[in-house]
Amino acid sequence: MTPGVPPTAARFRADLVAAATAPLPAPAAEAARRSLFNVLGTAVGAARTPALDAVVAAALGSGASGPVAVPGRAEGLDEHWGALAVGTAAHLDDFDDTHLATVIHPGAAILAALLALEPAVARPGSAYLTAFALGCEAQLRIGNAVSPSHYDRGWHITGTCGVFGAAVAAAVLLELDAAALGRALDLAGTMVLGHREAFGSMTKPLHPGQAAANGVLAARLAAGPDGPADAPDAFGPGGVLGVFSDGVDAAELFGSWERDWELERNAFKPYPCGIVAHPVIDAAIGAAGLVGDPAGITAVRIDCHPLVPELMGRRDPADGLQARFSAYHAAAVGLLDGHVGLPQFADERAVAPDAAALRALITLLPDPARDRDEARITVERNGSGPVELHVPHARGSLARPLTEDELTDKVHRLVEPVLGAAATAAIRAAVWALDAAPDPAGLLAALRPTPEVTA
Amino acid sequence: MTPGVPPTAARFRADLVAAATAPLPAPAAEAARRSLFNVLGTAVGAARTPALDAVVAAALGSGASGPVAVPGRAEGLDEHWGALAVGTAAHLDDFDDTHLATVIHPGAAILAALLALEPAVARPGSAYLTAFALGCEAQLRIGNAVSPSHYDRGWHITGTCGVFGAAVAAAVLLELDAAALGRALDLAGTMVLGHREAFGSMTKPLHPGQAAANGVLAARLAAGPDGPADAPDAFGPGGVLGVFSDGVDAAELFGSWERDWELERNAFKPYPCGIVAHPVIDAAIGAAGLVGDPAGITAVRIDCHPLVPELMGRRDPADGLQARFSAYHAAAVGLLDGHVGLPQFADERAVAPDAAALRALITLLPDPARDRDEARITVERNGSGPVELHVPHARGSLARPLTEDELTDKVHRLVEPVLGAAATAAIRAAVWALDAAPDPAGLLAALRPTPEVTA
Repeated sequence: MTPGVPPTAARFRADLVAAATAPLPAPAAEAARRSLFNVLGTAVGAARTPALDAVVAAALGSGASGPVAVPGRAEGLDEHWGALAVGTAAHLDDFDDTHLATVIHPGAAILAALLALEPAVARPGSAYLTAFALGCEAQLRIGNAVSPSHYDRGWHITGTCGVFGAAVAAAVLLELDAAALGRALDLAGTMVLGHREAFGSMTKPLHPGQAAANGVLAARLAAGPDGPADAPDAFGPGGVLGVFSDGVDAAELFGSWERDWELERNAFKPYPCGIVAHPVIDAAIGAAGLVGDPAGITAVRIDCHPLVPELMGRRDPADGLQARFSAYHAAAVGLLDGHVGLPQFADERAVAPDAAALRALITLLPDPARDRDEARITVERNGSGPVELHVPHARGSLARPLTEDELTDKVHRLVEPVLGAAATAAIRAAVWALDAAPDPAGLLAALRPTPEVTA
Repeated sequence: MTPGVPPTAARFRADLVAAATAPLPAPAAEAARRSLFNVLGTAVGAARTPALDAVVAAALGSGASGPVAVPGRAEGLDEHWGALAVGTAAHLDDFDDTHLATVIHPGAAILAALLALEPAVARPGSAYLTAFALGCEAQLRIGNAVSPSHYDRGWHITGTCGVFGAAVAAAVLLELDAAALGRALDLAGTMVLGHREAFGSMTKPLHPGQAAANGVLAARLAAGPDGPADAPDAFGPGGVLGVFSDGVDAAELFGSWERDWELERNAFKPYPCGIVAHPVIDAAIGAAGLVGDPAGITAVRIDCHPLVPELMGRRDPADGLQARFSAYHAAAVGLLDGHVGLPQFADERAVAPDAAALRALITLLPDPARDRDEARITVERNGSGPVELHVPHARGSLARPLTEDELTDKVHRLVEPVLGAAATAAIRAAVWALDAAPDPAGLLAALRPTPEVTA
């Protein structure tokens, strides 16, 4: 195969194999730990939702019980369904990590691929951290190479690029050589999935789950001694990246592996809804402390980036899931409740009369001159002057990343209802100890429900 | 859900549910039996190929042994990998059924979905025949609705539409109601896959395998009591069909279920290569009997439809797989050998000097005025006049379908090396008895290798 490998694909796979066997640069390792900690939190947080119950029930109904751990749940699944369930859980509440430049949520598919393969391999903890970091990084670099036209065409980039990332993570954990890694990438290119029409439906969180399952499948097939060795070259002329994008910038694949990782630009949401609305929520929460009784509000004007109404322009959500795609609702509950978490996106809060009434008073003013992490709110009141507030950079943005305390607090609010009060500290300790651990057993133990909690 | 269901989707799912509980019209049932018999032959014929060995090895390596039968093999797989392996096997040699108007190969994904679910359900033989027929028919009607732009855009329509067909077949076997069937179709719409760049590679036969696995997954998720009920409407405005095609003709979904089945227009290949080249092969085989010593050939001109060079224009294949996409090779071996079967596409025949020399003498003359099942060959010879032959309709075309004897002979050549001399008759008898059988046990028994044959 090697003589026929096009230069781009050959260089990319060689880079990945070299990075897989080198120590992670310290900033990349720390970024990987933060991303892993965050996505473990969102996976555990969704462990007991009806949607995940349905996925697990479908798995068990098809006889797919097995050794793969689903964070926060007692049932084990087989490799395929384990990947599907974990990836779905991690993205279920739209609360996972986001690479802002591409809008990729890289962590869910990678976590799922690694947990799916865990029972089948015997690798040290450092291999998991490296595989997680490289799976995310490959995914993000490919995402950069096909952006923005790929997303603009209607693809859910988390699903499509997630397949490549999951294949890389699986290949690293399975210790594939460069030729087999190349086959895995090429096979992954035939299994991309996901489009944006799924947004606002339960189908969207399935995408990283399917990306994980397909990526593991690609690596499994590539690892076989007689595997399909002549899959089309995903990066070559007429390759899948060209099919799915108006233009491919291959240079995006080749940032320095010593110091320039996209993973360091992975951000963590403070609010469980579309990230473009986060500056609006910051502004609403900030204004809530200044407004007094929200019953006196007569009008709300919010200057924001045009993507806010484009992606989250639903004014009257019918349930909690739709509410996650309503910047009107997010701003209203921020003003009414003074904080925005999972309860603000529960079904009953989405249709509450006070929220509906305030949503009707809100005007979004899209302004291309605004940054994506910026918003300005003006709240008009009966009998007193307007409240105005400007948020130059939203919490969780690149300019204002979540602090360690904020990230731990976020994860704790997700984990505690499922695994109890002590679990967050245990998960955090296991993630930060992973690189030196002989195996991932400590991390898996921290994700497992205790009989007391499940009883 | 029902009040919000768009008219197109509601009518299509209602039609399918009604058809699932009615007796199949006699011509549709016979078409289903012929298609099932043919695709069982191609699945068995590929049972012992290195490619299928690799898929089965990957399955077993991931712990996916289980009760699902893979025709012609002793190992059983689990539901997911069983679907993947069976669908891959059935399409592996590019010898399965073809719906000429859309270029869909409908049978592979449907057979795979049914065999995958067989251990999990207890349904009579008639349910299998009905599920097979409806899975194919839904797939073909959707294919008609998105053709030709979907294929023109670069999608492998067998993969994309196969997901819908497999979901329908699975839903029928699982006895889903109309609402759940609708969810299965909508979920299937998020799991389409396959593009034409995979042609000529081992990845292409994976597409119907993945289509089957995804369709089963969609039906499994839709069947759950708390399944994702609000997946996007595949047929609605902005639905997946619109994403993948420049125009959707929904009227194609609503042919009469009493008398107008696309399945009756499903054709069976007499030659194991791309169907567009079949008229060329007929012409070459016919000319072979008139030419005398092929060493005297000085030039060959073939008038054909423009799709022949477009889809099979590879002049110098390097192996048997590439040879299947070379009309030059197909014509050359037809002239040299006087017949065209699997041996003519073996690796060694692809690079044989006599074949290479004759390929170099062949000119394809694309002519848009030619029908797709038509070809005209002119063979110039040293020392004697040219041989000319016109094939108005290729064998296996709609105008000249394979006879029962031709179909049985084709299946026998595929089955006999794997399961022995008596197996074809047993499979044929079981397929034609399926509608009245209490279960599919007789058919499964006919597909199982005996210890004598496997030893």
